[in-house]
Amino acid sequence: MGIIVQKFGGTSVGSVERILHVAQRVIQEKNAGHDVVVVVSAMGKSTDQLVDLANQISSKPSKREMDMLLTTGEQVTISLLSMALAEKGYEATSFTGWQAGVETEASHGNARILNIQTENVKTELSKGKIVVVAGFQGVSEDGQITTLGRGGSDTTAVALAAALKAEKCDIYTDVTGVYTTDPRCVKSARKLESISYDEMLELANLGAGVLHPRAVEFAKNYQVALEVRSSMENERGTLIEEESSMEQNLVVRGIAFEDQVTRVSVLGLPNELTTLSTIFTTLATNGVNVDIIIQNTTSDLKTSISFSVKTNALEDTISILEQHKSILQFDKIESESQLAKVSIVGSGMVSNPGVAAEMFDVLANEGIQVKMVSTSEIKVSTVVDQVHMVDAVNALHDAFELSKEVASV
Amino acid sequence: MGIIVQKFGGTSVGSVERILHVAQRVIQEKNAGHDVVVVVSAMGKSTDQLVDLANQISSKPSKREMDMLLTTGEQVTISLLSMALAEKGYEATSFTGWQAGVETEASHGNARILNIQTENVKTELSKGKIVVVAGFQGVSEDGQITTLGRGGSDTTAVALAAALKAEKCDIYTDVTGVYTTDPRCVKSARKLESISYDEMLELANLGAGVLHPRAVEFAKNYQVALEVRSSMENERGTLIEEESSMEQNLVVRGIAFEDQVTRVSVLGLPNELTTLSTIFTTLATNGVNVDIIIQNTTSDLKTSISFSVKTNALEDTISILEQHKSILQFDKIESESQLAKVSIVGSGMVSNPGVAAEMFDVLANEGIQVKMVSTSEIKVSTVVDQVHMVDAVNALHDAFELSKEVASV
Repeated sequence: MGIIVQKFGGTSVGSVERILHVAQRVIQEKNAGHDVVVVVSAMGKSTDQLVDLANQISSKPSKREMDMLLTTGEQVTISLLSMALAEKGYEATSFTGWQAGVETEASHGNARILNIQTENVKTELSKGKIVVVAGFQGVSEDGQITTLGRGGSDTTAVALAAALKAEKCDIYTDVTGVYTTDPRCVKSARKLESISYDEMLELANLGAGVLHPRAVEFAKNYQVALEVRSSMENERGTLIEEESSMEQNLVVRGIAFEDQVTRVSVLGLPNELTTLSTIFTTLATNGVNVDIIIQNTTSDLKTSISFSVKTNALEDTISILEQHKSILQFDKIESESQLAKVSIVGSGMVSNPGVAAEMFDVLANEGIQVKMVSTSEIKVSTVVDQVHMVDAVNALHDAFELSKEVASV
Repeated sequence: MGIIVQKFGGTSVGSVERILHVAQRVIQEKNAGHDVVVVVSAMGKSTDQLVDLANQISSKPSKREMDMLLTTGEQVTISLLSMALAEKGYEATSFTGWQAGVETEASHGNARILNIQTENVKTELSKGKIVVVAGFQGVSEDGQITTLGRGGSDTTAVALAAALKAEKCDIYTDVTGVYTTDPRCVKSARKLESISYDEMLELANLGAGVLHPRAVEFAKNYQVALEVRSSMENERGTLIEEESSMEQNLVVRGIAFEDQVTRVSVLGLPNELTTLSTIFTTLATNGVNVDIIIQNTTSDLKTSISFSVKTNALEDTISILEQHKSILQFDKIESESQLAKVSIVGSGMVSNPGVAAEMFDVLANEGIQVKMVSTSEIKVSTVVDQVHMVDAVNALHDAFELSKEVASV
């Protein structure tokens, strides 16, 4: 049998008891004959506690020092899990991100993995050892400790699975799989047996929160078989694979949503060919993730651009734009917070042009105003007032009959 | 002006408030025109908390994984101190042990520093930055995270000072300097203005606890000017230098003591030329630090060896000896715990042969039995029952008149 990569998130390793429980899960796979690589996050609330310490010292700590601080969290978990495995009679070796060869861009707080040097991991596996790797962290070419951003442990796991040509990558989490939408908000939400990479990618990007989008991207690019499953209950989860044949004729597969969305409008920009690229290159190189983008040309000379960002990125966004005002030459910036994004996802949508219209119709019937729209071949996203978010999700879940085992088209 | 290295121990960085206070101390030296390198330990009780976590999982965690776990402690401190400096307007860069180029032996829990690659530190200093280095930790040639053992942050500081050819190395601690003995046990204990490396080395080795002996050894070998001083009070501490001229004619300069001493006796060893070297090489290569050694030859064929170890090393010691029983060929092992070591130190002793006799006399008058003796040119150590330790120290402090400003010979 081949290599299996298991990833356990913060809740799954949130206490000594849970770490011992995770050790048991790891040992199950080892006993089944696999070479096992385990990727873990920081214990439960420990990241929040570290952030709190930093905030007591500085309202805006440097990203480099935040990476230095936060990466200690996973380092604690890898050592404790290795000890737990040893205590149960299984040899284990822990590796930090840099020891596991996780090479990233030279940027802090949200670096991308560039490459994984697998020598150290392979050497330990060849000795019959279980390898425990700190998720979420890596090292840049010049030896700086970096982090992959929130949810980065998923990416570490999938990237390792790809680099090691693992048989599969199991993402253990506190939910039992991928649902048609968040069961905490919609009672009739249903667990999916399988879902395609593309659908999962849209759901992940749209804030479904089960899997980090970069992880899904990696999995798709390297064709890593993924399963999202519960660390507490011993049941099958949701398979993420190239083509989910069983339910492929469904138009809408899931509904994703996220709050804390802010719309930023940059007004009175010069209407030139390079305006769009200049503004979004400036934001990207300064680490601001922009989501939906809308351009309104108001005259031949002037144009306006609206885009959405996470609300916590608003301050950065405005300060970066103001710093570059002399280059960007805009008149003013406006913003609206307290917004949410609600999206429907499904690979069948590509051949069903009426789906977006149906979505707008459902929302209009609920009296919910749509403030921004963005579409791809397999999803339609709308931005609405945050107060209407849960109502919108429930109405759409009913309208597209997602609670039915096999929905009719 | 040149480079100054400052070291702050766990108590000095035990809270956010104290870290902010330390930042102020660092800034004082920076403002005075120095290039400043700061070495810090883990915050207050955080090492103990990590040890406690490990002990909840395993009664005997692997040393490699303990190093992995414990080194997170200093990593937290370096990031927080760098943030505190930035918040006060001073640019700072933090480095873990491996980033600071602290190369050690490939052993865990108690590794020695082999070399320091100073490029990273020098580059940051040349940019005008304050460099904050994690003490106590390093990296082996094969990329393992190692620790230097308890008190290792002192060693990191002195080794960095030596490698950087620093002007001086200030060891900030929770006491105001080096005392004739521990003021918590002897009321009349007096702070020394200066002390020689050799005397400090004996005191440090003998458990005075102010400075790690390896740190003093490094300082002596590389002639690093050291000062032990208080992180809380702004007064001069004790200078440690080659020759302490002011008080050089004192016979006894200080009294050191430590509890948790155990005597181990290996009985019925073959009386061969290689016996001593075999037994202590075996212990040393397995990481057991042996202190006093006494050999009793009982017959032409058989010999017995007694030695003292820290009580917490007893279990390891016995299991290592038992593992090598077929090579060592002893009859049995005996041990006695609940012992303490009490030592007098002074460079004047070399020309005063009666000092040891006077020490035994003082102890005999107190009714304290001496169980082991060890002498060097500048110290006499005795092992006594732990219950008599404080009485012995007080009696010796009085007898050698250490509370007097300038003692007569």
